[in-house]
Amino acid sequence: MVKKDDYTQHISAQFNTELEDIRSNFLAMGGMVEKQVVDAITSLLEADSRLAEKVQAADKQINQMERQIDEELVRILARRQPAASDLRFIIAIGKSITDLERIGDEAAKVARYALALAEEGESPRGYVESRHIGNQVRAMVHDALDAFARFDADLAFRVMQDDSAIDTEYKTSLRALMTYMMEDPRSISRVLNVMWVLRSLERIGDHARNISEQLIFLVKGSDVRHTSYEEIERKLQQDN
Amino acid sequence: MVKKDDYTQHISAQFNTELEDIRSNFLAMGGMVEKQVVDAITSLLEADSRLAEKVQAADKQINQMERQIDEELVRILARRQPAASDLRFIIAIGKSITDLERIGDEAAKVARYALALAEEGESPRGYVESRHIGNQVRAMVHDALDAFARFDADLAFRVMQDDSAIDTEYKTSLRALMTYMMEDPRSISRVLNVMWVLRSLERIGDHARNISEQLIFLVKGSDVRHTSYEEIERKLQQDN
Repeated sequence: MVKKDDYTQHISAQFNTELEDIRSNFLAMGGMVEKQVVDAITSLLEADSRLAEKVQAADKQINQMERQIDEELVRILARRQPAASDLRFIIAIGKSITDLERIGDEAAKVARYALALAEEGESPRGYVESRHIGNQVRAMVHDALDAFARFDADLAFRVMQDDSAIDTEYKTSLRALMTYMMEDPRSISRVLNVMWVLRSLERIGDHARNISEQLIFLVKGSDVRHTSYEEIERKLQQDN
Repeated sequence: MVKKDDYTQHISAQFNTELEDIRSNFLAMGGMVEKQVVDAITSLLEADSRLAEKVQAADKQINQMERQIDEELVRILARRQPAASDLRFIIAIGKSITDLERIGDEAAKVARYALALAEEGESPRGYVESRHIGNQVRAMVHDALDAFARFDADLAFRVMQDDSAIDTEYKTSLRALMTYMMEDPRSISRVLNVMWVLRSLERIGDHARNISEQLIFLVKGSDVRHTSYEEIERKLQQDN
């Protein structure tokens, strides 16, 4: 005979499996997105048009994954009455997949500019900056996902701080590129393409930061969007 | 004596009030964001630094509203077990406030460039384009909110189509601005600021489109992100 308690536990175990599935689908989507960022930057730096085209084509799969996870989340919300902590998890994932999808969009844009730049011929101007900022945002995406995988709010906080560092470097790079343009107006079109790349990379950093904010909300229960670093640090220390 | 039916109705009426509150808070937030867009564009075109500063300051209020509505949504999800249609509503609002908040961010950026441009002195180059695209995206934000207020999927679909038109104009404008730069390299810094303005305006259009997609999902129950216009049109006609 199945006792009520068994039944409840069964339901709950099934629910756990559903949540675990969502978590692993989210991380799988994250892994794909991270690969897109890496490939997009590589296609740019190595003027590899074939790789750039691959990145553009793979963007559809990421969109597809977002829809699929989104549907799973809605199904869970409709069928279960998630407790507060599960609800927080479902909401954090729901918001974070939007950011992942947009990171994918920006990677596809970088690939588009990589194609344009490969056609126009080599443009070493701004490539140092692209490589540098590119490596950093790619690490941010990795760390944001890692923070999610390990429920590590401290790591997520470091991603938020990295984002501020990148914003500063981004502005410095833009000024450097502007100087190149003025020195050599014939390079304007090429240098602009590099600027758009940097812009996309900077946005990828923003999205990684958003994902990190969601993770902190999930782990600590406090909404750290639009909050000063000092205040976030205080909150993180309080709970440790 | 309170009958069970009355009680249920009372609970339900209270729930309705909560949903209605969220809807009106969402539209109020939307109204503020729309005003920010209008003010940001005006501050740019009229080189009105005071108005630009006002836009920057008001961005905090919008962030605050997003958090507040977000908390209300989570509270409702935790306390009620919303039926499928209410759930869809809650999710659509949850996603749309993120887009509203980001429209606010872009308006604040436009205000920042307006300040920089006002300091550098007048730059008529690109202002025609900014005015034109600015008026269009401001209408898109208005229509997207209007579609939400009236549950008008057809209007939301028109916003989606407007966004494609703007993307085309945006690209044309960028080419024009690039030509100005080449013709007069001393104008590069100013023209770049105008380019960033156009970029922000174009993103505002993207966010208005996202909100419209959410409304279509809400009214028609089908996810129209990454879907061709022909297919969306077919879906809209099927249900009419």
